[in-house]
Amino acid sequence: MHAIEKILARASGKKEVRAGEIIQAKVDFAEVNDLYLQSIKSFYEMKGTKVWDPNKIAFILDHYAPAPSIQSAANQKSMREFVKEQGIKYLFDINAGVCHQVMVEEGIVWPGMILIATDSHTTTHGAFGALGTGVGATDLATIMLTGELWFKVPDVIKIEINGKLQTGVMAKDVVLHILSELGTDVAVYKAIEYTGSTVRDMSISERMVLCNMAVEMGAKTSYIIPDEKTIEYVKSRADYEFDILETDEDYKYSAEYIFNVDNLEPQVALPHSVDNGVDIQKTLEIKVDQVFIGTCTGGRLEDLEIAAEIIGDNKIHKDIRLVVIPASKEVLEKSIEKGYIMTLVKAGATITSPGCGPCLGTHQGLLAPGEVCATTSSRNFPGRMGSTEADIYLVSPATAAAIAINGKITDPRYYIKNAKVENK
Amino acid sequence: MHAIEKILARASGKKEVRAGEIIQAKVDFAEVNDLYLQSIKSFYEMKGTKVWDPNKIAFILDHYAPAPSIQSAANQKSMREFVKEQGIKYLFDINAGVCHQVMVEEGIVWPGMILIATDSHTTTHGAFGALGTGVGATDLATIMLTGELWFKVPDVIKIEINGKLQTGVMAKDVVLHILSELGTDVAVYKAIEYTGSTVRDMSISERMVLCNMAVEMGAKTSYIIPDEKTIEYVKSRADYEFDILETDEDYKYSAEYIFNVDNLEPQVALPHSVDNGVDIQKTLEIKVDQVFIGTCTGGRLEDLEIAAEIIGDNKIHKDIRLVVIPASKEVLEKSIEKGYIMTLVKAGATITSPGCGPCLGTHQGLLAPGEVCATTSSRNFPGRMGSTEADIYLVSPATAAAIAINGKITDPRYYIKNAKVENK
Repeated sequence: MHAIEKILARASGKKEVRAGEIIQAKVDFAEVNDLYLQSIKSFYEMKGTKVWDPNKIAFILDHYAPAPSIQSAANQKSMREFVKEQGIKYLFDINAGVCHQVMVEEGIVWPGMILIATDSHTTTHGAFGALGTGVGATDLATIMLTGELWFKVPDVIKIEINGKLQTGVMAKDVVLHILSELGTDVAVYKAIEYTGSTVRDMSISERMVLCNMAVEMGAKTSYIIPDEKTIEYVKSRADYEFDILETDEDYKYSAEYIFNVDNLEPQVALPHSVDNGVDIQKTLEIKVDQVFIGTCTGGRLEDLEIAAEIIGDNKIHKDIRLVVIPASKEVLEKSIEKGYIMTLVKAGATITSPGCGPCLGTHQGLLAPGEVCATTSSRNFPGRMGSTEADIYLVSPATAAAIAINGKITDPRYYIKNAKVENK
Repeated sequence: MHAIEKILARASGKKEVRAGEIIQAKVDFAEVNDLYLQSIKSFYEMKGTKVWDPNKIAFILDHYAPAPSIQSAANQKSMREFVKEQGIKYLFDINAGVCHQVMVEEGIVWPGMILIATDSHTTTHGAFGALGTGVGATDLATIMLTGELWFKVPDVIKIEINGKLQTGVMAKDVVLHILSELGTDVAVYKAIEYTGSTVRDMSISERMVLCNMAVEMGAKTSYIIPDEKTIEYVKSRADYEFDILETDEDYKYSAEYIFNVDNLEPQVALPHSVDNGVDIQKTLEIKVDQVFIGTCTGGRLEDLEIAAEIIGDNKIHKDIRLVVIPASKEVLEKSIEKGYIMTLVKAGATITSPGCGPCLGTHQGLLAPGEVCATTSSRNFPGRMGSTEADIYLVSPATAAAIAINGKITDPRYYIKNAKVENK
């Protein structure tokens, strides 16, 4: 069995499960964000009175934080009231940050667990060897009632990534490249396991970016074998006991792909699909109106670090507005301590409070018709960040920072000492 | 003549003007914020082609910064384009802050000038001996065409404020007290001159709060005699030549009011009118959901300083959310340098980018039906910050900070060393 199958087998009380089988599994943790008030409504509609386990549920207010509308304020109020009534242990309010980052920092993610949330990018937690997946309101309400969820045991695809990334090339570039090669439906309802020397060399944050964007290939969940880095990180955060379930040597992946990223260039995903990635050199003259550095694929400490390094004493380009949103309160605090925030503010950045920001088109920097945005977020569908007539380019935090000072799509290596680059 | 009359006389090319007279005056500076795209539309509708003087106009994007809707993004885009086409000197984009603070910091305010903006709180600039007033889009478009505006020369009311404020009592408390005594129409189309020992002792920032809220009494403009503090501040910022026009000794004010604030308690303006101010001791048990520290009457450096001092190592109350918005980029930078931002973030504050924030109900922390907000902003009308069924209490930044840690309306002196206070 694959490790993911072992997780599902254990959670369903079975000795063995196989791809394609429908099972009922116990969920270790459920998480609801402020887009999904309907989870509560469905809970009551299904005759719920008390949640199955108030210690295993979190509500997090990140998609509309702080509330940009009366409706979102009212939804958040209802969630706070539900949390209080039910004695739910975790409420991450408007000061906390993006769910996928906050959950990890708060020690609620560990290898071998099943974590279900009302957000498609819950595949992020594969970076810890956890089975994370996103569901809608009704499934989440079912978990709040019963603590269980049905699964079809997924096939697993192996994506092996080998080689040493060039300076200025990041996990975002890697996953955009993979997407451009494999497309957006290569892994529909499958699990993606990332492996290879590049993945082993990556920081936890960078691995989270790979796993996060597994869902852009259609994946139900994703997985990276926990190693010393994972265990050290999790132990420093979580109080939970865990063990590492290993994939059997004879496990047959449904498909295997191998990438070598030694010579990978920074990537840019052109509008309007995440699999439109191209080498950055093909896009250098495209003018940009807004740069956004933030979200669960670009707002972590390392992301703000590289952005601050690249921006340095430069000012943002006169025709650019730069919106920066740290992924969490902890990231914000550390970024202040390390001086990144001051560097960015002095350069002219607009820094708002931790949360999802304009990523999903709710507030904090939406796009007008005809505008062009370069963003570290994960999706560039028409209308994702405002007008359907705006163009969104997906890039790494390093590339985003370079664009912010140069006003057009720019190879970040131009601004990095000792990095190789052809031309600005 | 009053100094304000002398300003209007000079600007209209007359030797003398008198209250009630209708005059046409040259405007020194015009300012448009992002609520007022109609200024541009009216300009073209009135057959405008080139603005009268591109060096005397500023566009500032503060009310919807960063854009929380496609429409506001589109309006901002149109403004940026107009600024570029017309060669307008000043564009303060989404990273700048609240207009009334930014204009001052950028040295565009000086004694004796006439400054017209599309914002009612432009009376703020009376703190510098400038004639500031707010107009609608059509009047502003007229200025962009002609550089002139019509005025009825206003009567002037003198409000003399004497005495030494107790520790923990701020200009906001003073003006809320005055409002509670004089009401919201005491100065309709009149000018308010603030004078007296308390005003002389006040910092520039505190004087700006008094002048700002003159408009809440219906005032067309407001005025404080420029003194050494004013001149020093303006000279450190502005390149403009100016002289101080003095009120003649025989000038007859249309009314005079004298206040002694030696024993003034912190004030709270109850919902839903700015003149509902009462001593804080009458409101101590009122529970609060959201505290907002920010805006042109509560987001300056001194405001964040006292808030950070009061909060110290405390955490915000578990049932409170605290939104803090520095009034400008400069305030933000200094607040980071001085550690106020870190104190506030560690306490649990949600800090967003400089701008008007939720003050006028556009975004960044709106209120749900049934919620209670304590705010350092200037208005508590029904629906001002979101739902018409929310309650808004106006308070000083010191009081706001105390509420944030105590969860209910709280006398700030309870948290200030050596301050006198009856009970928490």
